[in-house]
Amino acid sequence: MTARLVLTAQPLTPEAFAPFGDVIAARGAADPINQGMGGRCNDLAQVDVTADGGRAAISVIRCIPEPLPIELRLMERHPLGSQCFIPLSGQRYVVVVAPAGSPPALADLRAFVCASHQGINYHRGVWHHPMLALDRECEFAEFHRAGPGTNCDEATLPGPVVVQLTG
Amino acid sequence: MTARLVLTAQPLTPEAFAPFGDVIAARGAADPINQGMGGRCNDLAQVDVTADGGRAAISVIRCIPEPLPIELRLMERHPLGSQCFIPLSGQRYVVVVAPAGSPPALADLRAFVCASHQGINYHRGVWHHPMLALDRECEFAEFHRAGPGTNCDEATLPGPVVVQLTG
Repeated sequence: MTARLVLTAQPLTPEAFAPFGDVIAARGAADPINQGMGGRCNDLAQVDVTADGGRAAISVIRCIPEPLPIELRLMERHPLGSQCFIPLSGQRYVVVVAPAGSPPALADLRAFVCASHQGINYHRGVWHHPMLALDRECEFAEFHRAGPGTNCDEATLPGPVVVQLTG
Repeated sequence: MTARLVLTAQPLTPEAFAPFGDVIAARGAADPINQGMGGRCNDLAQVDVTADGGRAAISVIRCIPEPLPIELRLMERHPLGSQCFIPLSGQRYVVVVAPAGSPPALADLRAFVCASHQGINYHRGVWHHPMLALDRECEFAEFHRAGPGTNCDEATLPGPVVVQLTG
């Protein structure tokens, strides 16, 4: 019998998320813009959407919240492009990721709890669980590849996994 | 002497904003996704970022709030690409736009107040005022063109203009 893995979601930081993608949030010194009324943190993500005739597209997803601890269902990856989500409902959320490559082993999984002012950009091919909402129904803007070809692979998890927020 | 124009910002809707760009928010029927735990409103915007060797990029801007009524400063346009802003701080904001083409006359200007769950995508060449924050310092994720060439034109306003929220 396979024991159930309990993953504890860590706070999202650019450094911890770097093996999987980019954090979209202001950081460091911002270049002045808008006649002194603002600043800009430029080019924060590896946007990779043009493979095999792809183009950049913008969609919106709605997510139904899931009770903690969350039972994971499967992992997916997009072999042809990066994928970015920005929260639109002022809500925190959870992402579960594993490195690009072979379908993930349980030991490869990492979970992050993301604040409402943070977006994430999965690098092309990075395994990730479908988006996990926590507190209420919420929406995300999605910046992604559109175009020909099959751009979603799924992998079953090798055993039962749940995510919690604190150890 | 030129009289001061007072623009009243209207609530942002996809229909009213259509001459200038796209509204990024859930609408209509969503396609089921994520094993029944969500839905997707697909391909909501004209993303136009590849002209003259351009590529898609993601940045973050910070905006200092401005007191109402807001005195407009200038208009700008991006001749080489579309530009999308998604609020990251759960805040409302104001956009001022005018149709692509010749530098705007005062009669061409339109102002919209946008809710915290709405993003906007300016179509390539559409004149717009630099982003206007209202209530507090706030941040936006920006999906935009990066690449060679000069991608920002500015135009002075033909007379003094202020924006207010209600008539």
